[in-house]
Amino acid sequence: MVHESKGSHYAVIFSSQRTEGDKGYGIMAEKMDQLASKQPGFLGVESVRDSLGYGITISYWDSLEAISNWKNNQAHQIAQQKGINDWYQNYSVKICKVEREYTK
Amino acid sequence: MVHESKGSHYAVIFSSQRTEGDKGYGIMAEKMDQLASKQPGFLGVESVRDSLGYGITISYWDSLEAISNWKNNQAHQIAQQKGINDWYQNYSVKICKVEREYTK
Repeated sequence: MVHESKGSHYAVIFSSQRTEGDKGYGIMAEKMDQLASKQPGFLGVESVRDSLGYGITISYWDSLEAISNWKNNQAHQIAQQKGINDWYQNYSVKICKVEREYTK
Repeated sequence: MVHESKGSHYAVIFSSQRTEGDKGYGIMAEKMDQLASKQPGFLGVESVRDSLGYGITISYWDSLEAISNWKNNQAHQIAQQKGINDWYQNYSVKICKVEREYTK
């Protein structure tokens, strides 16, 4: 049985390749997960990383404004800068409007 | 240095939890990857699955029509049915419009 729904919300797709070594990443990632989940407009997150350090995290938000507020959050800004400098060899961020959804 | 671009294209987010055992999944997944990449409007794919069988695959397409054509592709339909019956404990498919993109 496949359930279909439509709704107006947004997804932020974050794909990344980690550098080698932890460098404080684990603790910060957990902090940011917790902080994100408390932001207005946060709907949920799904995340997976493989043994080679390649990962995809998708967070869901109820508006572009909520995404923008989270991007500009002060603690998150510090984490983003450390991400650019230390934690990610490369990454991409895609902001998407969810048009349609099916689940099993 | 962060590169920013805008474009009009679409993402299909497929999140899934595999059942236990291969059951012909590996060969079919490879076949479908190859077949998808030959479809009109296919732009790319990124995929990751962890050791517990949880995975996210995101394929990118230039139009909703291209996504619909791929969904209705006959060989893909057979694979989708086997996915529902045998390979996935649960899954979700989200069709999204990519509004904005940053890369490092």
